[in-house]
Amino acid sequence: MPTGELRYPSPPPTTKMPTGELRYPSPPPVNSTTTVDVEAGLVWAQIKAEARRDAESEPALASYLYSTILSHSSLERSLAFHLGNKLCSSTLLSTLLYDLFLNTFTSDPCLRAAAVADLRAARVRDPACVSFSHCLLNYKGFLACQAHRVAHKLWTQSRRPLALALHSRVSDVFAVDIHPAAKIGKGILFDHATGVVIGETAVVGNNVSILHHVTLGGTGKASGDRHPKIGDGVLIGAGATILGNVKIGEGAKIGAGSVVLIDVPPRTTAVGNPARLVGGKEKPAKHEECPGESMDHTSFISDWSDYII
Amino acid sequence: MPTGELRYPSPPPTTKMPTGELRYPSPPPVNSTTTVDVEAGLVWAQIKAEARRDAESEPALASYLYSTILSHSSLERSLAFHLGNKLCSSTLLSTLLYDLFLNTFTSDPCLRAAAVADLRAARVRDPACVSFSHCLLNYKGFLACQAHRVAHKLWTQSRRPLALALHSRVSDVFAVDIHPAAKIGKGILFDHATGVVIGETAVVGNNVSILHHVTLGGTGKASGDRHPKIGDGVLIGAGATILGNVKIGEGAKIGAGSVVLIDVPPRTTAVGNPARLVGGKEKPAKHEECPGESMDHTSFISDWSDYII
Amino acid sequence: MPTGELRYPSPPPTTKMPTGELRYPSPPPVNSTTTVDVEAGLVWAQIKAEARRDAESEPALASYLYSTILSHSSLERSLAFHLGNKLCSSTLLSTLLYDLFLNTFTSDPCLRAAAVADLRAARVRDPACVSFSHCLLNYKGFLACQAHRVAHKLWTQSRRPLALALHSRVSDVFAVDIHPAAKIGKGILFDHATGVVIGETAVVGNNVSILHHVTLGGTGKASGDRHPKIGDGVLIGAGATILGNVKIGEGAKIGAGSVVLIDVPPRTTAVGNPARLVGGKEKPAKHEECPGESMDHTSFISDWSDYII
Amino acid sequence: MPTGELRYPSPPPTTKMPTGELRYPSPPPVNSTTTVDVEAGLVWAQIKAEARRDAESEPALASYLYSTILSHSSLERSLAFHLGNKLCSSTLLSTLLYDLFLNTFTSDPCLRAAAVADLRAARVRDPACVSFSHCLLNYKGFLACQAHRVAHKLWTQSRRPLALALHSRVSDVFAVDIHPAAKIGKGILFDHATGVVIGETAVVGNNVSILHHVTLGGTGKASGDRHPKIGDGVLIGAGATILGNVKIGEGAKIGAGSVVLIDVPPRTTAVGNPARLVGGKEKPAKHEECPGESMDHTSFISDWSDYII
Amino acid sequence: MPTGELRYPSPPPTTKMPTGELRYPSPPPVNSTTTVDVEAGLVWAQIKAEARRDAESEPALASYLYSTILSHSSLERSLAFHLGNKLCSSTLLSTLLYDLFLNTFTSDPCLRAAAVADLRAARVRDPACVSFSHCLLNYKGFLACQAHRVAHKLWTQSRRPLALALHSRVSDVFAVDIHPAAKIGKGILFDHATGVVIGETAVVGNNVSILHHVTLGGTGKASGDRHPKIGDGVLIGAGATILGNVKIGEGAKIGAGSVVLIDVPPRTTAVGNPARLVGGKEKPAKHEECPGESMDHTSFISDWSDYII
Amino acid sequence: MPTGELRYPSPPPTTKMPTGELRYPSPPPVNSTTTVDVEAGLVWAQIKAEARRDAESEPALASYLYSTILSHSSLERSLAFHLGNKLCSSTLLSTLLYDLFLNTFTSDPCLRAAAVADLRAARVRDPACVSFSHCLLNYKGFLACQAHRVAHKLWTQSRRPLALALHSRVSDVFAVDIHPAAKIGKGILFDHATGVVIGETAVVGNNVSILHHVTLGGTGKASGDRHPKIGDGVLIGAGATILGNVKIGEGAKIGAGSVVLIDVPPRTTAVGNPARLVGGKEKPAKHEECPGESMDHTSFISDWSDYII
Repeated sequence: MPTGELRYPSPPPTTKMPTGELRYPSPPPVNSTTTVDVEAGLVWAQIKAEARRDAESEPALASYLYSTILSHSSLERSLAFHLGNKLCSSTLLSTLLYDLFLNTFTSDPCLRAAAVADLRAARVRDPACVSFSHCLLNYKGFLACQAHRVAHKLWTQSRRPLALALHSRVSDVFAVDIHPAAKIGKGILFDHATGVVIGETAVVGNNVSILHHVTLGGTGKASGDRHPKIGDGVLIGAGATILGNVKIGEGAKIGAGSVVLIDVPPRTTAVGNPARLVGGKEKPAKHEECPGESMDHTSFISDWSDYII
Repeated sequence: MPTGELRYPSPPPTTKMPTGELRYPSPPPVNSTTTVDVEAGLVWAQIKAEARRDAESEPALASYLYSTILSHSSLERSLAFHLGNKLCSSTLLSTLLYDLFLNTFTSDPCLRAAAVADLRAARVRDPACVSFSHCLLNYKGFLACQAHRVAHKLWTQSRRPLALALHSRVSDVFAVDIHPAAKIGKGILFDHATGVVIGETAVVGNNVSILHHVTLGGTGKASGDRHPKIGDGVLIGAGATILGNVKIGEGAKIGAGSVVLIDVPPRTTAVGNPARLVGGKEKPAKHEECPGESMDHTSFISDWSDYII
Repeated sequence: MPTGELRYPSPPPTTKMPTGELRYPSPPPVNSTTTVDVEAGLVWAQIKAEARRDAESEPALASYLYSTILSHSSLERSLAFHLGNKLCSSTLLSTLLYDLFLNTFTSDPCLRAAAVADLRAARVRDPACVSFSHCLLNYKGFLACQAHRVAHKLWTQSRRPLALALHSRVSDVFAVDIHPAAKIGKGILFDHATGVVIGETAVVGNNVSILHHVTLGGTGKASGDRHPKIGDGVLIGAGATILGNVKIGEGAKIGAGSVVLIDVPPRTTAVGNPARLVGGKEKPAKHEECPGESMDHTSFISDWSDYII
Repeated sequence: MPTGELRYPSPPPTTKMPTGELRYPSPPPVNSTTTVDVEAGLVWAQIKAEARRDAESEPALASYLYSTILSHSSLERSLAFHLGNKLCSSTLLSTLLYDLFLNTFTSDPCLRAAAVADLRAARVRDPACVSFSHCLLNYKGFLACQAHRVAHKLWTQSRRPLALALHSRVSDVFAVDIHPAAKIGKGILFDHATGVVIGETAVVGNNVSILHHVTLGGTGKASGDRHPKIGDGVLIGAGATILGNVKIGEGAKIGAGSVVLIDVPPRTTAVGNPARLVGGKEKPAKHEECPGESMDHTSFISDWSDYII
Repeated sequence: MPTGELRYPSPPPTTKMPTGELRYPSPPPVNSTTTVDVEAGLVWAQIKAEARRDAESEPALASYLYSTILSHSSLERSLAFHLGNKLCSSTLLSTLLYDLFLNTFTSDPCLRAAAVADLRAARVRDPACVSFSHCLLNYKGFLACQAHRVAHKLWTQSRRPLALALHSRVSDVFAVDIHPAAKIGKGILFDHATGVVIGETAVVGNNVSILHHVTLGGTGKASGDRHPKIGDGVLIGAGATILGNVKIGEGAKIGAGSVVLIDVPPRTTAVGNPARLVGGKEKPAKHEECPGESMDHTSFISDWSDYII
Repeated sequence: MPTGELRYPSPPPTTKMPTGELRYPSPPPVNSTTTVDVEAGLVWAQIKAEARRDAESEPALASYLYSTILSHSSLERSLAFHLGNKLCSSTLLSTLLYDLFLNTFTSDPCLRAAAVADLRAARVRDPACVSFSHCLLNYKGFLACQAHRVAHKLWTQSRRPLALALHSRVSDVFAVDIHPAAKIGKGILFDHATGVVIGETAVVGNNVSILHHVTLGGTGKASGDRHPKIGDGVLIGAGATILGNVKIGEGAKIGAGSVVLIDVPPRTTAVGNPARLVGGKEKPAKHEECPGESMDHTSFISDWSDYII
């Protein structure tokens, strides 16, 4: 790394590490606006340092890195530019979207804080995430989530047609379909993200990890509150389908390919189609750690008696 | 709503309503061409009224609404414009596609009637569908289906290379992959639609509802008739996989995430991987209503004995 | 077909054929560079003949066929052009991508040989594939795979940021997400392809067929070798999820919608969620043919005792 | 030329020919609609034959020739496509312009007749014009003139804002600025065309030839009828400036670089800044031939006594 | 005009008016920021009213009018959007240019005041200018001038490479070539504008009118101060060429096609190639009015003894 | 300038310098291929150094500088990229043009040598040219000339339709119209360039400087050799019109706005409309220096007796 660049404190290693550990030192809890600003500033500085390093080592990519990151004075501007150019179409111009994103990001500092938390989630939880800039530039789940936050903001301001148009662009471009009314927390990792569908009245807590092809769907019977409520720290494996106004308790784990239509208690694991609790519904196995952060999809295998090949 | 606008008879309410009811008064059966034209005219008038209202309340979206809806004299022209601009690429120009869509829509009035039926299906069945224009502009399932109908028309005219090129664009842009030879009925709702795959010899009846990630696939063993036949009024839940030349009887319901390789009798429900009939194969539970229209994915839960968490 | 055009030896019939047979005469094994070159030359000549025929019969498509195929002097140039124009964005220009693809294809003849093997795989195994040009132009799985091979080459040359940018474009445009570090063999068919996710340390052998929505995923617990290893000739059905550093033996078959977290022995079939071996784990049924080539998804039905509706 | 192609009667030679002669046999006078249709049909057939020949000999251009000419069923469609794609911008989409051009061309057959007359004018008068298709594809003067005719039509229908928007696009793209209210005859050659400016109340007769940088301007004093009236068969040399409501008599010739603010009698030649009549104003030299058709810019040199170097 | 819209005081008539009069009531002199703001506000309100009227009467143009004018909250935003989309290219993105224009307009209120003065200049002096919005949308001279002001601002901030890149885009798109170092006053009308070239050390005063093809060029001998200085209220006719560090006195008039290499005294008229003063250099005719505002190009004809045909 | 960058020998000062002197030390004559290569290498190194400096000082422009210059390994690649992106349209894709330019530049080293000579011409002769990269990026005359050289090459290879299509794009984009058959020497400066028109049989020698709006036109009488022949070192002022197969002797000077229809002897000056020799045709004044290089447009004023205001 070129001398003199800003370094993120305790830069995350890119080498392998012991199984199951958090790969990134947990930051202290963030309480005040000042701390959030400092955090965001450090992440942005790190992103620029990464992009500068990559631009130097790869001239073919330098133009892209300058236009998307290095020419911008803030994370918000970079994101607004990147999303505007990703989501534009011949009938929804990039200048219009850029303006919309920039104004919304500027008007609500929470959106930046959430973006920073999401960047850190990807960096910490996904071994394939080699840098913050990698996530910012390339993770469709991250980008779809930031665009959703703007669409959600518009929805709450009763600018629904615009929110839905944005929703549609995200669904076309990223194949990620999050209804603008859905409430999504912070520190979310949408890993791979293709095919994620989240319905209108769904709620997703903080520090949740959701793999691709996950559905938080309705049951079709009613127009009211009809989508899942996902607690903090939940991990939902690839292809899982959760339907109806059910509650997935905090720290629960939903196995890949599971179909869930009933509440799942906190810190338990549900697997299979139809889903069953590992350990049985009477005395389900409880785990301690937060699966949304550890991303442990498979440690329950040994506990799952009839899973065998 | 601004005074003087055309109103669709009994405009659908956007507020919540009692569970399980149809949300939209059933129109009388449509028999003659004249009635179809009147119906299409009313829907188009309603779409324009909605777009006008939205353009007034949201100037940032007005340009989009005028270019896609309000500048056009008919639903066919609006659709041809919208699809042409959505599906174009640097090597398949929007002008070429617009021309192709417009000519095909104009030459076959059934395509318009089918589009109107699909619009109504989305409006009636999907609680998240707030207006006809919302569906016309933003529903990738709706748009992919209309583009498919044009591709299918080309296929039947032996213009196969063009049909396949269109198919490919739809698969790239919407992540919806319907082979141009597949036969699709009217009043279809592709809800969310991402990841839907429908093979060459599949047949889908009328008033069917298909959620995202549904596969109507072949078995790979032969090049002949090898894909599912879906009866009228069927509901297929998210992520269901139906393989081979099997018959899903009219009004049947396929649970989310099910894997079906054998015929399913009419008005029964198949769930699970591998799929089983709710109530058992000997005496399966039969339901009365049309699930393709009621969109009830989960009422069978209580009937499904070993589904429990 | 116009007189005088080059013909591919024993052109594949497009009519129906007996169930289960290979639809295309097996070519003799390819040993030397010369043979590979001859093979590639024949396929390219066939592609041009097909495109010429289609351009003549369908003027609306002629411009597309000339720009993507007929104006090029080699398969590599055609592919570089087509991928450059498919994957470009407003911040990653088609000229840059074209240059990158062309230089990489030219510098490594193996990439062309692999592309030819993939074209033949689609032509032989997929009954819906009517011609080589159909695959070259329209199959997102084929195109994503060729782009992946270039990204993988860049990855092995330590040009990682560029490899990841390409990876991201493929994921956006085709909804196919193959990590550039993943090792993919030759003669691969990604059928339909939407939603395929293949992780960083996955390895896929030769002559493998993978349907859409298939995940070769990690377990999230570690940053090291954590993804599946797929043997030669494996067939993985739609929506199957294989997680962790498990080994799918050569010639094995994974049923659609299966969730696999444990090794699967060679030439056996695993189905269900959680997956079980057909015939039982003690004495699983073994098949002879190569399912990756026969594409037989469902012949195990009768063997699978508790699958019934 | 490939055997069996349609040939235009008496195809124009492309080799040199005696000075001053018409290079193309004069067609018989056109009287009836039928004759006009036949003439247009022959020109369109010739254009397609030329384009087919060029597409065969130059694969790199074939895509362009198919998209602009060979894929279209009529000259009007080809022109509408070509102009729509040339004049579009990010805020005035090609589909909108294509529709506008196609509808206008279709509604008024005179526009096609005028286009054919202009094509023939370029082919006959400009030695550098090697074919009809060369003019149709590449002559900005020809294209600007056809777009003007559509803008003028809109102007006469009181669709002035649209006419002015089209005017602006033509001025941006071709650097040809013809006010939509200006009346332009048929058989016009705008040679090179860059920098031509023609004001609101100008009138240009039939069979006029106008070189680049020519201004038919107002005098700025009034908003009424304030621009030149150009008679039939006039030739205006490069860079000539004609200002005010003056009359240039039929068959007159205006020398390159002249500045004309007073009427010029028929069949006389005005040259210089300020312009004077060759031969003197009392007894000006009169010529017989039609300079707008012979394109003779310089035969008056010997007659112009004080022109000498 | 729809009731209740803001009206500009004494809206300019669009019908013809007596020769030579100013067509628009002279506004009182503008002294304070407040007055400037009020003036700008009135013009912007008038532009929006015009655009709204045109959007209603011409649906095909409504999308364009909304995107360029009606969706924006200020003249600066509208201009930044319009220029960004007009001047962008595949390597200089619209979002970048929009941002640059918007930031520059916002940081220097003089730019808005100058734009308003230019809009009024076009509206008052050009009989073909039917509305403020017509000028804002369609006048390449107006747009090139506003872009130049931004480039000039960048130049004075020593951001020269960016200023020159902008200069280059304006020259490509509008064929108007104003060096970013040139100083241009307010209330400028570049009528038609194609081909205008203004060199690095040129200075143009206030209320100047410059027709197309006008050159304010250098003499090539030196790199220092080498371009013309144009006084207030000067009128320069089409195709006039003024070379070297010469002074065109205030209120002077330069005839169309003139070539001027020596100072021209105030309120005199120079015509011809080489240019001479009307009335002779000893006692040139002096006019009273301001030709830059009256746009009288030709009233000097009777005074110019040897101009005759 | 950042330490360690390559420096061009005797870098040209950017400050003012004494009148009339050459601004750049004349390089020694270039004789061998090696010398040409060295020269080209030095210019390219200087261009990259300039671009790197500008990218560092102006982040908003860095993306543009990297994509057009800094990501490329040679001047030819940079030019091919820049021209491909400048001249492309929706029907002539940038990838096609890039390929065409790159192949032509690579196949003929003379094109690179000519480009280098043109870059040096602009740098030496035009006081407004602040750097080589400024010319490469922004001078439409330079870019049009390089594109012309490629079109001319195609013309000589009998690829005329392609040459004419390129010609048309240059005329649309740059408003510079050079017929592909015209022969243009090396070391050419097209200053400002807008509106230049050069006909089919024109020949332009080496080290010629041509200002904007210059016409080297035909006389319209014949299809044979009908355009001017311009000797080495000629200077042609803005707006000059030279018509017919006349010879402008080496080192001659043509005044701005002149109209020339007769031969001009070497090292004389022709001015006016109609043009006359300064000093009279019997004993014209002869100058020593090479006006094409000194760019002295106006030193003849004192010699031109009747030029006076």
